[in-house]
Amino acid sequence: MADLDVVGIGNALVDVLSQEDEAFLAGQGLVKGAMQLVDEARARELYAAMGPAVEISGGSAANTIVGVASFGGRAHYVGKVRDDQLGEVFSHDLRAVGVGYSTPAATTGPPTGRCLIVVTPDAQRTLTTYLGASVHLGPGEIDKRLIERASILYLEGYLFDPPEAQRAFRAAADMAHAAGRKVALTLSDPFCVDRHRDAFRELVERHVDVLFANEAEIRSLYRTTDFDGALRQVRGHCAVAALTRSERGSVVVAGDEVHVIAASPVKTVVDTTGAGDLYAAGFMIGLSRGLDPATCGRLGSLAAAEVISHVGARPQTPLAELAGRLLP
Amino acid sequence: MADLDVVGIGNALVDVLSQEDEAFLAGQGLVKGAMQLVDEARARELYAAMGPAVEISGGSAANTIVGVASFGGRAHYVGKVRDDQLGEVFSHDLRAVGVGYSTPAATTGPPTGRCLIVVTPDAQRTLTTYLGASVHLGPGEIDKRLIERASILYLEGYLFDPPEAQRAFRAAADMAHAAGRKVALTLSDPFCVDRHRDAFRELVERHVDVLFANEAEIRSLYRTTDFDGALRQVRGHCAVAALTRSERGSVVVAGDEVHVIAASPVKTVVDTTGAGDLYAAGFMIGLSRGLDPATCGRLGSLAAAEVISHVGARPQTPLAELAGRLLP
Repeated sequence: MADLDVVGIGNALVDVLSQEDEAFLAGQGLVKGAMQLVDEARARELYAAMGPAVEISGGSAANTIVGVASFGGRAHYVGKVRDDQLGEVFSHDLRAVGVGYSTPAATTGPPTGRCLIVVTPDAQRTLTTYLGASVHLGPGEIDKRLIERASILYLEGYLFDPPEAQRAFRAAADMAHAAGRKVALTLSDPFCVDRHRDAFRELVERHVDVLFANEAEIRSLYRTTDFDGALRQVRGHCAVAALTRSERGSVVVAGDEVHVIAASPVKTVVDTTGAGDLYAAGFMIGLSRGLDPATCGRLGSLAAAEVISHVGARPQTPLAELAGRLLP
Repeated sequence: MADLDVVGIGNALVDVLSQEDEAFLAGQGLVKGAMQLVDEARARELYAAMGPAVEISGGSAANTIVGVASFGGRAHYVGKVRDDQLGEVFSHDLRAVGVGYSTPAATTGPPTGRCLIVVTPDAQRTLTTYLGASVHLGPGEIDKRLIERASILYLEGYLFDPPEAQRAFRAAADMAHAAGRKVALTLSDPFCVDRHRDAFRELVERHVDVLFANEAEIRSLYRTTDFDGALRQVRGHCAVAALTRSERGSVVVAGDEVHVIAASPVKTVVDTTGAGDLYAAGFMIGLSRGLDPATCGRLGSLAAAEVISHVGARPQTPLAELAGRLLP
C-alpha cells in the first residue's frame, strides 16, 4: 500500500513579490496573469525596476505539496535548488510544514531559481521566472522507490521547459504507472501549453489520469475559444479532469459524470498567486483518501479560497481545520 | 543648507518572520517583545525550529529611513551587508523606495545579518538577531560630507552592540554636531540599554538632541519602574524626548512643553514589528520640516499605526498620502 498521499515534482523557486500598478506591466512589456521565462540578466533588470519586495518560498508544485501537507496529508517534493541562501529558504519552508524533501542542492552552476511576481491592484499576479538551478533536475534525481510510495504523482507543466526536467518528468510518470499509481498533471500556463502542445496532448491522452487546467490552459491545449468544446475533448482522454474557472468555481469531469463546483466565498481577494496550485492540493488529498470527485472539487475550492485571501502562495491557516468534516 | 532630511545608521538586517504560538517562545527560551543577540549556530538552530517564514528587509534604522522616504522625505542609509543574496534583497528594497544607500557590501566574512522574528497570536514580535556582516561597519564607512548634508542624524541603539559600529556611531555624532545638525537616538531595546547603560546616559546627557524610547527602555535607562520619574529625568537632558507607550500613544517632552499624543486608530493589529521605527520616521520628517513637537508626534503615531496593521516593518501604503494636511 502507498504510504504517501502525493509526491510532486516541479521547478523549485523562491517568489519575489511586489505590488505595482497597471502601468508597470505595460512599461515592462509583461502580459498580465501569464508566466514568462527569462534569463538571469532580464530577471535582474526587472527586479531592479520592481518596488520593495517580499521573499517567500514558491514553485507551483511545491505550493501544491505544502497544501497537501496542510490538509494533514503525507507528501514529498522533488525539485532542485542551489546551496545558497534562497535555496536554504526554500528547503526550510518545505521541511517546516512536514513535507519530505531530499533532492540534493546543486553545489555548482546557477543560483536557486526565482519567480518575480507583480501583483496589481486587481489582485492578479504576473510571473517572470528565472529557472536557475531548477533546470538541473534530471532523470537521475528521480527515486523509483519514492515514486512507488505515493498514491498520486503530481507533475507541473512548467517542468516541460527545462529539457532535463522534461526527461525526469517522463521517467517519473513511467515509474508511477508501473507501480499502479495515478499520474496527475497541471498544465500550469497557457503559454507553457503553447510551447509544448503536442507533447501535452500526447501525455493527456496516454499517460495522465488526473488533469488540472484553468480555462485559458484547456483552451490553449485544444486551440479553441469554446470552453464547452474543450471540455468535451478532454472528457474522453483522461479519467478525471478538474477545470478551474476563477470566481466561477470549477468543473470536474470524471468518466460520465460532470460536477459543477462553486468557488468558496472569500472576503477580499488579495493576491491570486497559488490559487490553481492549492485547488490541486485539495482535489488530490480528497482523491488520495478515496472521496468522490465532487467532494474533491470542494476541497480544492476551499484551499484556493484560503490562499487568495492573503499575500503569498502557501496557506496561512491549516487547511485540515478549514476542511472540517469534508475530509474525514 | 541641508539637502537631506535624515541620514540613518544601523545594523543592516533581513527579517525572517514566522507565526508561532506562545509555547514556541517558552520552548525556545525566548523573552517576548525583546531582542536577543545570537551567534550563527544558534540562529540556525532557531530557524530550523521555526515554521514557514517570509523574508523581508528589516533593520531598525533602515525601517525608519524607509518610513522617512515614504513620507516624501529625502533620506540616506548607512549599514553593512555581505555581497550575498540577502544583501542584494536588503539593498534592492532600500533603493526601490528612493533611499540613498552607498555602503559597499563586504566581500569576505560573515553573511548578511538577519533577524528571526517570531510573531505570536497577540501580534507581539520577539526578535533574535544574528548580526553577521553588520558588525563590520566601522568609522571608516562614515562619509563626513553625507552626514553634513542631513538635518538629522539618526542612530539606532542596537549599533552599540558591535564595537566597531559603536565607534562609527560616535564618529558620526561628532561630525553631525560639528556641522550644526541634530542627533537623534533610539534606545532600541531595554536589554540593549542594560548592556550599555552608562554609555547611553552619557550620550543622552551630552550628545543627543532627540531621544526615542518606549516605556521599558526609558525605565531601563534610569533604572526605575516609574514612567513619570523617568520622564522627569530625561527632561533636563535632551532637547526633545519622544516616549512611546504602545496603545496609549506617546508623550513628547520638548523643553518646558509636554504633549500627550493619542495612538492612531488601527482596525486589527497584525504584527507590531516596526512600530517604534516608524514612529521615529514620522516624528523626524515633521522635525526636519520645522513642525511643532505635537504634530511631529501625531505623524509618528500615524506611521506606527500603518505598519502594525500588516506583516512586516515597512509601510505598504505611502505615508505621504496618509499624512495629508498634517505634513504640508
